[in-house]
Amino acid sequence: MPQPLKIAIAGALGRMGRQMAQTVAADPRLEPVARFHRPGSMGEGLVERDEALALVDVVIDFTTPAASVELAKACAARGGPALVIGSTGFSASELAAIAEAAKTIAIVRSGSYSLGLNMLTGLVEQAARALGSEDCDIEILEAHHRFKVDAPSGTALMLGEAVARGCGVDLGDVARRARDGLIGPRPAGEIGFAVLRGGSIVGEHSVGFLAEGETLTLSHAAGDRSMFARGAIAAALWVAGRPPGEYDMRDVLGFTAS
Amino acid sequence: MPQPLKIAIAGALGRMGRQMAQTVAADPRLEPVARFHRPGSMGEGLVERDEALALVDVVIDFTTPAASVELAKACAARGGPALVIGSTGFSASELAAIAEAAKTIAIVRSGSYSLGLNMLTGLVEQAARALGSEDCDIEILEAHHRFKVDAPSGTALMLGEAVARGCGVDLGDVARRARDGLIGPRPAGEIGFAVLRGGSIVGEHSVGFLAEGETLTLSHAAGDRSMFARGAIAAALWVAGRPPGEYDMRDVLGFTAS
Amino acid sequence: MPQPLKIAIAGALGRMGRQMAQTVAADPRLEPVARFHRPGSMGEGLVERDEALALVDVVIDFTTPAASVELAKACAARGGPALVIGSTGFSASELAAIAEAAKTIAIVRSGSYSLGLNMLTGLVEQAARALGSEDCDIEILEAHHRFKVDAPSGTALMLGEAVARGCGVDLGDVARRARDGLIGPRPAGEIGFAVLRGGSIVGEHSVGFLAEGETLTLSHAAGDRSMFARGAIAAALWVAGRPPGEYDMRDVLGFTAS
Amino acid sequence: MPQPLKIAIAGALGRMGRQMAQTVAADPRLEPVARFHRPGSMGEGLVERDEALALVDVVIDFTTPAASVELAKACAARGGPALVIGSTGFSASELAAIAEAAKTIAIVRSGSYSLGLNMLTGLVEQAARALGSEDCDIEILEAHHRFKVDAPSGTALMLGEAVARGCGVDLGDVARRARDGLIGPRPAGEIGFAVLRGGSIVGEHSVGFLAEGETLTLSHAAGDRSMFARGAIAAALWVAGRPPGEYDMRDVLGFTAS
Repeated sequence: MPQPLKIAIAGALGRMGRQMAQTVAADPRLEPVARFHRPGSMGEGLVERDEALALVDVVIDFTTPAASVELAKACAARGGPALVIGSTGFSASELAAIAEAAKTIAIVRSGSYSLGLNMLTGLVEQAARALGSEDCDIEILEAHHRFKVDAPSGTALMLGEAVARGCGVDLGDVARRARDGLIGPRPAGEIGFAVLRGGSIVGEHSVGFLAEGETLTLSHAAGDRSMFARGAIAAALWVAGRPPGEYDMRDVLGFTAS
Repeated sequence: MPQPLKIAIAGALGRMGRQMAQTVAADPRLEPVARFHRPGSMGEGLVERDEALALVDVVIDFTTPAASVELAKACAARGGPALVIGSTGFSASELAAIAEAAKTIAIVRSGSYSLGLNMLTGLVEQAARALGSEDCDIEILEAHHRFKVDAPSGTALMLGEAVARGCGVDLGDVARRARDGLIGPRPAGEIGFAVLRGGSIVGEHSVGFLAEGETLTLSHAAGDRSMFARGAIAAALWVAGRPPGEYDMRDVLGFTAS
Repeated sequence: MPQPLKIAIAGALGRMGRQMAQTVAADPRLEPVARFHRPGSMGEGLVERDEALALVDVVIDFTTPAASVELAKACAARGGPALVIGSTGFSASELAAIAEAAKTIAIVRSGSYSLGLNMLTGLVEQAARALGSEDCDIEILEAHHRFKVDAPSGTALMLGEAVARGCGVDLGDVARRARDGLIGPRPAGEIGFAVLRGGSIVGEHSVGFLAEGETLTLSHAAGDRSMFARGAIAAALWVAGRPPGEYDMRDVLGFTAS
Repeated sequence: MPQPLKIAIAGALGRMGRQMAQTVAADPRLEPVARFHRPGSMGEGLVERDEALALVDVVIDFTTPAASVELAKACAARGGPALVIGSTGFSASELAAIAEAAKTIAIVRSGSYSLGLNMLTGLVEQAARALGSEDCDIEILEAHHRFKVDAPSGTALMLGEAVARGCGVDLGDVARRARDGLIGPRPAGEIGFAVLRGGSIVGEHSVGFLAEGETLTLSHAAGDRSMFARGAIAAALWVAGRPPGEYDMRDVLGFTAS
């Protein structure tokens, strides 16, 4: 059994920070060494950031774009540790600063750490590339709780983009976002969306490849926020010891391996 | 083991007539005694209608409204046999003639003999009555082959009517036939529809009752036309020996038993 | 809009008691009037039992068999309020005491208050009665989290009992609890079970009626404990003002209406 | 629009040969140039084998091992056309003869030409490789018609092998082929199977990756034999113009591209 990986958690008092602490503590492959929050924060067991950086292999960071940029610079200046960044909403100049730090240290950055959804997205693109949307009718179905205000969901549209990329088309040209009335036969090449709303469903997505005589369906059901913590841990285990560079969940899941 | 039921098949040279002959022949509870088509039709084993009526307990009839009316009158004039009618498209006066014949003989008449779809419709109405659409969000999903030109399917709308009847509302007031864009939270009481199209799917329907913390789903998948023949046989077995009257598949399936 | 129903919660400091308090408070059809726990219990807003009984229309009680019996006697002695009992594990003599109290007051008692599962069980029995297990192959599938130690689940077996009741057979005679190897064609009349285990699935059950050419599937997915609180509220709304008697969720859901 | 590919069909009087002829004729990317059967066979439009080989780019061959070996030798001797072989049951020496021919011409050979099932198998292996069976509980469910005599299906076991390959384990060591009784918590690393039988289901398979808080499911439903013809056509379009070698559906679907 290898030595457990030494982990620090940034933004330790935030919602994802607390979830991370709990999930890291339960994982025998990891040693939770340090937790920190913004400078001057107080709380049981918190340390200062620079103290934490000296102790660990990887920092897991769900904070804000500004805090993540500062953290990346500090890690790069020290030559490590590696970083797993889950903050979202970066500006172009903030992204440039992250990229600069990634010349010195290894960084995984993703807008969503769900292993299942990232896996689904990668598999969907691959299936679309091989099967095409000419012989095969590709349909995306999503279901969410009654309080969701937009349709189709952002994730459904992201899956549509993956399909379109796989087929070499532009989603805007082929998306069929609703069907009602006398619509005629389904045009070849269309990418269809369908939406269900109700109850307390956290989020379900499925992509169907419907051909003459057979149907292939790839789907994902989300339960709770723990799935994001598990994905961040998979990223931490993967990034430790990697050469400098900016990676995403596609790399972690092996979709980009040559 | 009871005596097998003696069956005649009307419209024996039509598509459903041939399917019926095949399914009846394979069923040990039935004895296929006679087949007939329109007067003067020739074909191996065909007899004239009145000859057939003298020999059997039940006639299964998938023909035309005019032919079904003539057949019902002829059966009533003789005081039997009972009738299972699968023709569709009756005018008001034709329906009145059927009702008149049903004062003398037992007749089952239905627009669709699928046991599964009739069962689904009955169960859906019952669940909607008990669960309501205030606490529970009711959503109807259907999928069909790429050549279907209308959406939602007629069967999906029929299921929507069953839901509305169960909830004591008017479907037109609460149907949500498509969702796209910034739609806001789902209003209580809405009945939602979603549509998938592709491949060679014969027909799939599901009705979801989505509540806080749980989901009940009732669904049906159609394979081929043999399901209609099986339902007509169930109706024949049920109607033999019944008192005069006009029945439908709800009676056959026991939804109307007091 | 009718007057809200006045509710007391017994066992208010227990896990279901706290869940009930939260769900009752959020429901505009109810007025949460009093909460009590065992005699002498202290806690914010708690009152003594007899004080509570004087104020309300219905008491919702998830406690212990002994406490439920005492509560039923006290309510009966006063001529009300009505009771919704969710305690489980009653002895024969305790059940007799509940039945005695139900001569004076209306009591709903159920081992599970999930509306969805009770609905599923009722619909499954009804479908089995109408479709039979000779023409139709009935299969029960269940999925639960990785920590569940028994298979099939108690709920799956309860659904099997409902199927057997509907078909007029004994489950023990026809249950097929596993299939592995060279098993031969499926015997008519068999009721099959299949089991999936993994992840954090709370509980999913489905009953399939698989016929030649079509499949009807009735299924339920559980999310969290809030579903039990919702069912208890449905029972409270239903039982208020009923004549004395002991009822269960089949009555609440209308399966026993003549 | 490119020139249509010139196709010959071997075994043209067999069941798959007739299905191929029909599917090829309906595909605008293909030109059905010649059909042949065993030497001396007569039938409308049949030609002799060697005449056919001179005219086409690809031969599609669903015959017998012996006939396929003779065909491969004849194609190799002429330096073409390419071959798509769907015969099954080859002996070791017959496989060696095919391999020898593949030094001169391009040959695709597969035991099943379903695009969907081959895709599913490839995606399942890839997902298993990335997600592992330690963090994720992998479960395989299959459903077939009532006449199937073995369980789990051969395809389910093939999917189990793909999972095991992805996880780097031996299926025999970790397969859990049935669950019944007091089985205890699910051991990490297990690969579970569950089986449904009934009705006229052609074949449904699904592989679930069940993790804490999320589930990824990859599934396939078969309709009819036309799916094999479509896969053979995809293979023909892919193999035309390839360098000599023996390929399979993994190559056609791009799973082996470097």
